[in-house]
Amino acid sequence: MKRVTVLGATGSVGRSTLDLIERNSEMFEVVALTAHRDVSGLSAAARRTGAQRAVIADESLLPDLRDALAGAPVEIAAGMNAVCEAARMDADWVMAAIVGCAGLKPTMAAMEAGRTVALANKESLVSAGGVMTAAARSSGVTLLPVDSEHNAVFQCFDPDQAARVRRIVLTASGGPFRGWSREAMEAITPAQAVAHPNWSMGAKISVDSATMMNKGLELIEAFHLFPVAAEQLDILVHRQSVIHSLVEYVDGSFLAQLGSPDMRTPIAHALAWPDRMAVPVERLDLAKIAQLDFEVPDPERFPAIDLARAALAAGGARPAIMNAANEVAVAAFLAGRLGFLEIAAIVSDTLSGYDPPAPETLDAVLAVDAEARAIADRRVRNRVR
Amino acid sequence: MKRVTVLGATGSVGRSTLDLIERNSEMFEVVALTAHRDVSGLSAAARRTGAQRAVIADESLLPDLRDALAGAPVEIAAGMNAVCEAARMDADWVMAAIVGCAGLKPTMAAMEAGRTVALANKESLVSAGGVMTAAARSSGVTLLPVDSEHNAVFQCFDPDQAARVRRIVLTASGGPFRGWSREAMEAITPAQAVAHPNWSMGAKISVDSATMMNKGLELIEAFHLFPVAAEQLDILVHRQSVIHSLVEYVDGSFLAQLGSPDMRTPIAHALAWPDRMAVPVERLDLAKIAQLDFEVPDPERFPAIDLARAALAAGGARPAIMNAANEVAVAAFLAGRLGFLEIAAIVSDTLSGYDPPAPETLDAVLAVDAEARAIADRRVRNRVR
Repeated sequence: MKRVTVLGATGSVGRSTLDLIERNSEMFEVVALTAHRDVSGLSAAARRTGAQRAVIADESLLPDLRDALAGAPVEIAAGMNAVCEAARMDADWVMAAIVGCAGLKPTMAAMEAGRTVALANKESLVSAGGVMTAAARSSGVTLLPVDSEHNAVFQCFDPDQAARVRRIVLTASGGPFRGWSREAMEAITPAQAVAHPNWSMGAKISVDSATMMNKGLELIEAFHLFPVAAEQLDILVHRQSVIHSLVEYVDGSFLAQLGSPDMRTPIAHALAWPDRMAVPVERLDLAKIAQLDFEVPDPERFPAIDLARAALAAGGARPAIMNAANEVAVAAFLAGRLGFLEIAAIVSDTLSGYDPPAPETLDAVLAVDAEARAIADRRVRNRVR
Repeated sequence: MKRVTVLGATGSVGRSTLDLIERNSEMFEVVALTAHRDVSGLSAAARRTGAQRAVIADESLLPDLRDALAGAPVEIAAGMNAVCEAARMDADWVMAAIVGCAGLKPTMAAMEAGRTVALANKESLVSAGGVMTAAARSSGVTLLPVDSEHNAVFQCFDPDQAARVRRIVLTASGGPFRGWSREAMEAITPAQAVAHPNWSMGAKISVDSATMMNKGLELIEAFHLFPVAAEQLDILVHRQSVIHSLVEYVDGSFLAQLGSPDMRTPIAHALAWPDRMAVPVERLDLAKIAQLDFEVPDPERFPAIDLARAALAAGGARPAIMNAANEVAVAAFLAGRLGFLEIAAIVSDTLSGYDPPAPETLDAVLAVDAEARAIADRRVRNRVR
């Protein structure tokens, strides 16, 4: 039995994780489940899985959770400290699937407690990559990436042959505006931007895919996950999203992971690792797909990639600032307050106007994040005035 | 220093192997080199690499080899027994690159002596798969496949997760007649058949690629190399030959090896294994290639695939008979004595008319091979009368 904890159990990744756990209940024992505010989702999941503990992050919802789990043999707690405590509980495997900067401290708590961490929280590596990977190294923790691209790289990257890896190639769908002219892109609406061609995703990440900022963020994540230099990371536009990423070796071999666009495959890979488990996903049928296309990304129409490369090269607080500014700008775009091409401009402006020293603790990262959001917010206001 | 022996040192695979060894002379020490009749190629290679021993299979050429290596500190021998003895010499790694049934006994000798064997001799697994793999198992020998498809599978097949492999998918270029009608295929000439679109190869193997018998032979090889059932082996037509093969796992992941069509990559993989070594091959540029295509093979126009599946399913002597009859038929086609579509017919006829018991020794395999050739030869004569 693998003892597992799911942080962020009611979000998309959390629910898929629990689905796989419940389908294979003889293989797993659920230690703790946490959620932000979804009391009914959390309590139902805790009852179904027989979880030892259920934690709601929003302290004001503790009475509701208590009511919802009345009579069930489940320990109940609330608040961020309780989420971190749940992350530290004795488990073999922790899924870190809390969205946003709220995921930083619980993820760090799991790592410091020496848990194997399946990492679905982008901010842990984008904003706090240096701090997090230092903690992982000192605790000897294995980080299992859940993002489809990084999970693909993980499956193809032989750690014993790291010195023989020439390059990591992250594939990108190119989003819905891959072939559009810059002029046409100026008038892109939120409704157009959230319609991703391959994956079913939330609004924020769909816009990131449309601007290709998602690939910029993934470059930074890959840098922290795998022992390669920034120059060894490449992006390849592959609109079918069938090849999820590739690793090139010095002998000319490229190893790639392919699959249907279904997050349950990378989640299951992380969940079963180092074993594998059956997953009820649609099987990839290459003959039916018939054709795979590849092209280089266009930095003119998708400036987010160069912004991310520069932030990665400069290091320190730059990735955290970029990520925070991007979140603010995307929210403003989705609210109809900013044009599509202005998203990258807000990010760039925020980076230009704020250059704090490298954060060395999670609290310092969170302070940089908050300040960058405030600056980006002002830039949005000034721009749309 | 890895101590290496190359059986068939003057053929295409042997020469590529020596090229890689010579470029990395600090990593390798050459124990023995063998050749069939190419005295000058063998002697030059032995001098360049400082080989301990050089063996020519054709005994009548011993005096010539002696002359060619006069004054060099190289042990000299001749004859098939001497080739087998060279295969048994104390080496860490033996490349089995002798073409045809002549390669069976030396390959077996290397395996019985416990050497790690890089296998480029198709007949070892197609005609003598059962005998050879039993020997490999009892000696605890690692077989490293050199064929690009099987080497790709080897790179993607996790032996610790064999029970989690759902399928092996061998890719096939489909040859130069992929899109041709059956009518047009009747008039195919030898010159058309040897012009392979992707790989530069010999005439026999080019014709096998054009009939897709090469993929049938590879199915049988894959069955012996990897712990899967015959039903778990699939063929996918992929005309660019960029994805060299794939392994599908139960979690929906496909792992694939991709590369430029250059045999030096799989040879280097086998040579350096479990490490990897740099190879001066053209780097695969997917954006430049732009498009990869996939389709299911057409069993009507390419009956060789079903012939091979049936031979594999029946087992015993069937694959050896099929292989022998195919060699005779391809030679007759290349000599202008047989139509292109008649190649499969000769193979089928030979299989129908000859059903000996399963060979249990290499000598029995060789007897089946000889008898099948004689029968196929008669069928060719009867047909073209």
